[in-house]
Amino acid sequence: MKLYEFEAFPNPRRVRMFLAEKGIDVDRIQVNVPEGEHREEAYRAINPEMTVPALKLDDGRVVGGCVAISRFVEAKYPDGSLLGDTPEEQGMIAAIQRRIETGLMDASTTYFHHATPGLGEKLETYQNADWGHHNAARAKATVAGLEDTLASQDYVAGDRFTIADITAFVGLEFALFVKIVDLADYPAVAAWHARIGARPSAAA
Amino acid sequence: MKLYEFEAFPNPRRVRMFLAEKGIDVDRIQVNVPEGEHREEAYRAINPEMTVPALKLDDGRVVGGCVAISRFVEAKYPDGSLLGDTPEEQGMIAAIQRRIETGLMDASTTYFHHATPGLGEKLETYQNADWGHHNAARAKATVAGLEDTLASQDYVAGDRFTIADITAFVGLEFALFVKIVDLADYPAVAAWHARIGARPSAAA
Repeated sequence: MKLYEFEAFPNPRRVRMFLAEKGIDVDRIQVNVPEGEHREEAYRAINPEMTVPALKLDDGRVVGGCVAISRFVEAKYPDGSLLGDTPEEQGMIAAIQRRIETGLMDASTTYFHHATPGLGEKLETYQNADWGHHNAARAKATVAGLEDTLASQDYVAGDRFTIADITAFVGLEFALFVKIVDLADYPAVAAWHARIGARPSAAA
Repeated sequence: MKLYEFEAFPNPRRVRMFLAEKGIDVDRIQVNVPEGEHREEAYRAINPEMTVPALKLDDGRVVGGCVAISRFVEAKYPDGSLLGDTPEEQGMIAAIQRRIETGLMDASTTYFHHATPGLGEKLETYQNADWGHHNAARAKATVAGLEDTLASQDYVAGDRFTIADITAFVGLEFALFVKIVDLADYPAVAAWHARIGARPSAAA
């Protein structure tokens, strides 16, 4: 298996963290997105969607996107489940993960791409600043919701670490990077952030 | 199990189609979203996210969102898989489903909510017409991509019906409803649309 990624970006980090938590090692190939390498012929031949992360399977097929890659990895290596064991748990974790993904991860990157110079004018071919600011507000509201959640439970989806923590952690770190939230305002989130940040997978 | 939905909306339809394909019958409760019922105390007590569809499980927990509900249902009732059998298939189908969901389903509803009166000014508290039109263009591009795909295979994710067909079918029907695509421009999509529309689940 080969992971096509750009190390500095948040979404590839979600996949690296997922793989590290599962104890799985894969070859990693850097695709220099800020330089436009994802739009060049060589990468288009690998992933016509021109996105990272993408995982090339041993059978040659390519799975793109964090959640789809996680699905494949979890099904292939079910030990130490991060997506839930029972059907009920799988459903709940998928719902919570998605809510955080949309409300924090995607909202923060949308702010970055639309309301800041983002990756620069060559790559940011369409920007909508008002939409970007709307999403910054959404990201903040999601972190406020996480504060309520984490005041009464240790992990985002309940009493154990799951994919929802990965999405929330990487999304939060990106929101901090683009300065749309301040951890000082969210003590329970800050304590959880310190705990998750101490896991070896956070450095993967 | 109880499905909270609003029958006229596209996302609840995805869940009804999924359940019908699996041969599963659930109680359905209408939440009148255009009248704002989803924001009232009674529904907030059931689903604090104030969204439909949401599935109330027999243990009382609530799973919100089409894909999360489908995950639960597939894990609970694995016969006649719609999310894939092998890990590789599960990963590929999840990736394709997500691409169509973002590029057609969500793009079409974003156009509706942002660039048309949508559900009316009481519910559409933030609109961004330019973002709406940008998404209409994205939806069209996704349908053009489906035309290429369906020219050489019978179903969106390969040679059998999966959740990707449900997302694409309901997304396409919504794009047709808001008149951002015309089936006459896409013969392979039109033929597939007729085939999927003839399945009993399309009327669920």
